[in-house]
Formats: sequence, structure tokens, C-alpha cells
Amino acid sequence: MKRSCVADVLANDAQKVLVRGWVHNINRIGKIAFVQLRDRTGIIQIVADDDMVRDLRLEMSIEAAGNRVLNEKAPYGVEILADSIRLLGTVYYDMLPFEINRKKIKASLETQLDHRTISLRPVKSRAIFKVQQEIEEVFRNYLKENGFTQIHTPKIISSATEGGSEMFTVDFFGKRAFLAQSPQFYKQMMVGAGFERVFEVGHAYRAELHNTWRHLSEYVSMDVEMGFIDSYEDLMDLEEGYINRLFRHLRSACADELEMFGVSLPDSVEIPRIPLAEAQRIVFEKYGRRSPASGLDAEGEKLFSEYMKNEHGTDFVFLTKYPASKRPMYTMPDPEDPELTQSFDLIYKGLEITTGSQRIHDYEMLRRNIIKFGLDPECFSFYLDSFRYGMPPHGGFAIGLERITMKILDLDNIREATLFPRDIKRLEP
Amino acid sequence: MKRSCVADVLANDAQKVLVRGWVHNINRIGKIAFVQLRDRTGIIQIVADDDMVRDLRLEMSIEAAGNRVLNEKAPYGVEILADSIRLLGTVYYDMLPFEINRKKIKASLETQLDHRTISLRPVKSRAIFKVQQEIEEVFRNYLKENGFTQIHTPKIISSATEGGSEMFTVDFFGKRAFLAQSPQFYKQMMVGAGFERVFEVGHAYRAELHNTWRHLSEYVSMDVEMGFIDSYEDLMDLEEGYINRLFRHLRSACADELEMFGVSLPDSVEIPRIPLAEAQRIVFEKYGRRSPASGLDAEGEKLFSEYMKNEHGTDFVFLTKYPASKRPMYTMPDPEDPELTQSFDLIYKGLEITTGSQRIHDYEMLRRNIIKFGLDPECFSFYLDSFRYGMPPHGGFAIGLERITMKILDLDNIREATLFPRDIKRLEP
Repeated sequence: MKRSCVADVLANDAQKVLVRGWVHNINRIGKIAFVQLRDRTGIIQIVADDDMVRDLRLEMSIEAAGNRVLNEKAPYGVEILADSIRLLGTVYYDMLPFEINRKKIKASLETQLDHRTISLRPVKSRAIFKVQQEIEEVFRNYLKENGFTQIHTPKIISSATEGGSEMFTVDFFGKRAFLAQSPQFYKQMMVGAGFERVFEVGHAYRAELHNTWRHLSEYVSMDVEMGFIDSYEDLMDLEEGYINRLFRHLRSACADELEMFGVSLPDSVEIPRIPLAEAQRIVFEKYGRRSPASGLDAEGEKLFSEYMKNEHGTDFVFLTKYPASKRPMYTMPDPEDPELTQSFDLIYKGLEITTGSQRIHDYEMLRRNIIKFGLDPECFSFYLDSFRYGMPPHGGFAIGLERITMKILDLDNIREATLFPRDIKRLEP
Repeated sequence: MKRSCVADVLANDAQKVLVRGWVHNINRIGKIAFVQLRDRTGIIQIVADDDMVRDLRLEMSIEAAGNRVLNEKAPYGVEILADSIRLLGTVYYDMLPFEINRKKIKASLETQLDHRTISLRPVKSRAIFKVQQEIEEVFRNYLKENGFTQIHTPKIISSATEGGSEMFTVDFFGKRAFLAQSPQFYKQMMVGAGFERVFEVGHAYRAELHNTWRHLSEYVSMDVEMGFIDSYEDLMDLEEGYINRLFRHLRSACADELEMFGVSLPDSVEIPRIPLAEAQRIVFEKYGRRSPASGLDAEGEKLFSEYMKNEHGTDFVFLTKYPASKRPMYTMPDPEDPELTQSFDLIYKGLEITTGSQRIHDYEMLRRNIIKFGLDPECFSFYLDSFRYGMPPHGGFAIGLERITMKILDLDNIREATLFPRDIKRLEP
């Protein structure tokens, strides 16, 4: 007989069924045993003779064949009267690291991350990644429909992309190389290579020394770069379109998962665009908090989001026109005030989830700006040289996949939205 | 006026249009100039007064507005009579690195790779990546429809996954770490974590010292891992299903691209499954070539593919039952002959594009096998420990994205199917 998934057994009315999964729970009542079998799609009750389950232990993987029957006392009103139970994968433990058949896992996040094969078994832990997969898929589909090409760019690179520190070094056949902080240079070059509109979903690396609830050393960056734009407003339009498309999709495709996390997403999202200086002023005037020149600090982002939620009913806000001295050297200056830039961050529920800008596309202007930033154009020659051949006006942005996942589901720590997080303290599992 | 893409101008019959792109070619005839404008969707002829194009040079990016008119002498029978031409991005060169408005680029592959922003501008160079995107997208869609979850696993890892050499080392906050050769351990763990069926499309790293037409130091691996299988035949069924789905899709979605490369794909593919020993025997008997114990060598793969094509009319063959001593320590032995394994390679047009197998799922058996391979179970404890909790029978495979792209399009070198290749000689651009 062919294996059926639990969700199908619950939904369809076949009589004879064969299911496979893990032993989620066992209750022995006299000569009868009730086994909760869990597979990737759900949990179902198996009713068996006590001697059929004598050797069963929690979390073994098994196969059960039998008759599907209705029983209003069973969870979801369906159970399987087992003809046979067969062991597929046995267990080797004295005690599980923590119990996973309770409503809540009673183990610290660190312990859960140490035992990922166990901590992800409850439906709710895995639901995060179902939502994450959809976030990514909508990103791809939305961009493809808008004429974007997917690219893969190298993560082993020869120079420090952003001219910054915080990069991991790699021994590349005896040469000192780096892990890319972002596909920035490469995505711009691919705009110029004739693709015009490109996106990438790939790993990015930050050797950040601080260990916070919102930073990872290795994360998934959803990157966009778009040529022949009229202004950086085009980029914010594109991202706003994505957020709306995403929320519409999640409300239907992930209704169960959103409910598990008690989340409801708005029908439509209009994102205000507010110059950074104004946001800094509001944070100071309303909350008495001074901001650094570079933007809002973490607390400022939280306070300003609070203000936007209360005053304007929105979870999102674009902060625009960051100071030129605080943005990377490739950022396009603002035509009205060259001390500012045509740049933006997207703040969602108090956390920056996107940084973006129009880029400088003129070779000479870029070269001068590199020098102005105290950097050596020679170190970026492969990048800079590609601007000699008619680079069009362009810009882009990047969304942190784990960050947007965390914020949509109101998780407390970005590590919950990562299967195997990497940070200054964690290189395993 | 809103920008139109060239393909839309050719297909629709709007009168006034505005296009943006690069100057592909300029012909001045008396007072009239014919400019070929190239954007991501195609090339169109712009007719302008000579003084409007006086300062234009090849590969500048420009905007042209004017009337769309029919002219049977123009390429595709359509041209634009320009009212205005505006410069968007200028050029800074004495001479282009090589001409790109000819039928064929007259530059070595190395030179083309040095100037990626130029060498990708011809439609045919970019067509490779259109096909590649579809290869990947069909992979995702096919697997998702079959109940697979997409995962992202870490590329910075603590131990040499396959117990092998050929790994790049990373300085991870002062600790010695490695770049993952494959997501092998992690995808298996995610099967055990309750996802049952997972896939990943991500970078994999090989510090291989040889420099060949078919190896990259950084490549994209399309990985699959599947739990609760009956045998490794399930895996070959799954991959065969993918190939058929892929070819069906490419024949319609990439008809133009396949034609550019003179490729026709079969309507349906049935892939013979032949034990390695038999293939080795045939290669010896037919071609007098001895094979290494580990499989066929590169020349043997070519010869055997030739044989399969001539005798059985197929471009594909699964080679099965590789010797246990030549496969990784997690490979499931063959129940009929423990010297062999339940493993396979997929050979396509003379090149291995996939390696796969059923894996050992029993904790004790795996531990013993690690020791048998001369490895220390302690070094793999986070992996091995995850087998204590009812790991079900499972297996998987991986497809090299650049390899399958190269073979589908009959490219000569894997670097043509990579935007920015990395190998022992190349770390830039």
C-alpha cells in the first residue's frame, strides 16, 4: 500500500490507510494503546493493541497500517485502527533533551538551537519556515513578473566590498580573500551587463562582534537592483508593491501559520516616506531621545515606529535622505542637498529590514567619491571599470529574510527564524 | 511618457513610444542616422537626424522618444522615428575591450570573463542565464508540489563534512572553520527534524587544485533529501520526474534560447539504471579502457555515454551500486552485497551531473561506519547525535546547476554558465 500523509487521511475518506511518522505520544489504557503519530503534515491518533506498541518509545519513526474510522473523541474526529505497526527508525537515548509533545517547549532558545533535530519537530517551530519559504517565493515571483532576472554572484571576493571592517577572511588557494557582506558590486555590474533588473537570494556575511537578538553572522539577503530608474522613489514603489503582494499571499497561503502565532496582516499597506532628519526631530521632541547622525539607533527605531503606529496606524515607514557621510561611497547624493543622499531604510515594527538607494552611475563621479571616502580606486578597479561603458541610472535595496520573517511572526529572536544560526558564539550545529 | 521595452514596441502598435537601452550600433548615412538600441528584451532601430546623434558612442545608455512606424527594411519590420534622444549614462573608453555587435564575440573566454559587464551584453550570452533561472525554478516548483520544504543551511561549518580535504578555511572570530562542500549533514538533519522532504539551492565550495572545463571552486548545488523512502529507487524516480518536467517546461518557456544554441530536447526521458560494474565492463570490452575502482573516469563517462546514445538512444544514464569504500561514510550499503552501496550517479551527455544515495539512518550503524572509515565520531557529534531520535530511512541527491546548464546548452566550458566563476586562478572580478 502507498503511504498517505496525515493531512490526507484526515481530509479524505479512504478506508485502508498506511501512514509513516514519528511517535508523538503514547497512552496505554488497559489492553489498548493510543499512539499519536506525527508527520510533516499533522498528527493523527492510532489505536492499537497494547502488545503491538510494547517496544515503542517517543520519537521513534514508525509505519502504521489499518482502517481509518471516525471517532468524535479523537483529535480532528478521525483515528486509525491499526492492523500492524512497524519500526522504521529506532531511538538511542535515556531521556529526550526536552519534551516536545507539550503545548510549549520548556527549554531555553540556546538549548533548542543545540538540538535542532528535536526542537523543530513541533508543528509550530516548523511553521516559521513554511512562512519563510513563502516570503522568498513571493519575492521571486513578484520580481520575475516585473522583468527581473535571478542571478548568483560570488561569496568569495577579493576586496572588502563596502570598504568596511567586519568581514570574514578566507584562505583562497593561499590568497587572502573575504566572504561577501552583500552582492552589492556584482548586482550593480549585472544591471550594467544588460540584465537591467536583477535579484539574488543568497547568503551574506557579517563578522559583527556584538551578539544581539537581531544580528546573525550568516544570513539570507534578498537583493534587488534595477536599471533605468527615474528616481529612488521607483525603488520604494517596488518594495511597497512587494510587501502588499506578500501580505495578500500570506493571508491565504499561510492562514493556519499566522493564526498559530496570533498574527493578522493588514489588507493593504501604504508606506509613508519621511526624511530621516524629520524622524530624528520627532524622536527628540516626543521622546526626548537624541539620535546619532547616521540615523536612528535601535531604541529610536522602536520609538519612531511606536509614533507611526499611534499617529498614522502603520507598521512600516521609509526613512529617506540619509547623510552622505554615513552611507556607502556608491550612494547617489541628493540633487537638492549634496550633504544628503537618495537613500532609504525601511523600518518595520521597530526594526530596520531594508537598506536601499539610488547609486552613482557616472564613472568619474564614482571615482571621485571613492577617493573622497579615503579609499583607493585601485582596490575596486574591476567594479569601477565596469562603469566606463554606459552604466544607466540605477538603484536597489536588500531585505533581510530572517528579519522580515521574525517581524511578520512577532518572534523575539532572529535565531528562531534560522535553522542553524551563526554568531560570535555559535558555529555548531 | 512611460518607458516601453523593445519587445513590447515590436509586438504592440502604440504610436508614441519612449525606449531606454544601450547603443548597440550606429550607421550614419548622409543626414540620417540609424541607431540600434538594445535593451534587456531585444534590439530596435531608431531613425534620427544626424545632429541628434552627433555625440553618441557605442554602448552609451540613452533614452529615445518618437513615433513607432512600420518599415519592412528595418529589422523585425519596425523602427522608431526619433523626436528626441537623451543621454542617460556616458562612456569612458578609448576602445571597447572587444566588439559585441557582431554575430560572434572575438575574444577568448578568459578575456570575456575579465570583462563580464561587456561580454554579457549580447543577447546570446545572457540567454544562458535565462535558461539557468528556469532550471532552478522548475526544480523548486516540482519539489514544492511534491511536499518538499526549502531550507537554507550554513556554509560556514566547524568540521570537514565529508571528512575530506579540498576545503577552504575561514577565520571565524579566531576559530578555524570551513566553507561547506555540500549541505549534506544539514539536509539529513532537517529530514529528521520533521520536515521529511527538503531541498536547498545554495553555494557549495571545493578547493580543487585542478583547473578544468567542468570544475568550479564555488558553484550552485541543487540539493534534495527525502525521508521515509522505500529504497534508493525512489530517489532516481524523483530525479527522472524532474528531468522530464524540466525539459517539457524549457521546450515552451525557452524555445527561443534553445534555438539560439541549436538544441532540441526530447519529449520524454526514460533513464536506464545500470550497475557501475556493468558499465565498467562495457567500457573495457567495447573501448578497451580500464576504469578506476571508484567509478568511471572522465573519459570513461564520455565513452559510456556514447555507447548509451548509440545503443539505447539516451543522453542520460544512472550508474548504480558504487563500491562502499569509494562512497562517503553515510552511504547505505547494498543489502545483497555489503561491499556495494545503494548509490547512484547521473551521467548526462558524458558528464556526471548528480551524485546520490540512500543514507544510513541507524545511529549505531552510522557510528560504526564512521570508525570503519578511519574517522573520529567525536568530530561529527552534532550530526551523529541527531540520529539518536528515530531517524527514518532517507536519501537524497544533488544536481550541479552550472553543469546541467552547460550540458543542456552544449556549452564547452562550465564558466560560460557562471556569471563570476571562481577557480584556482580566478578571484576577480
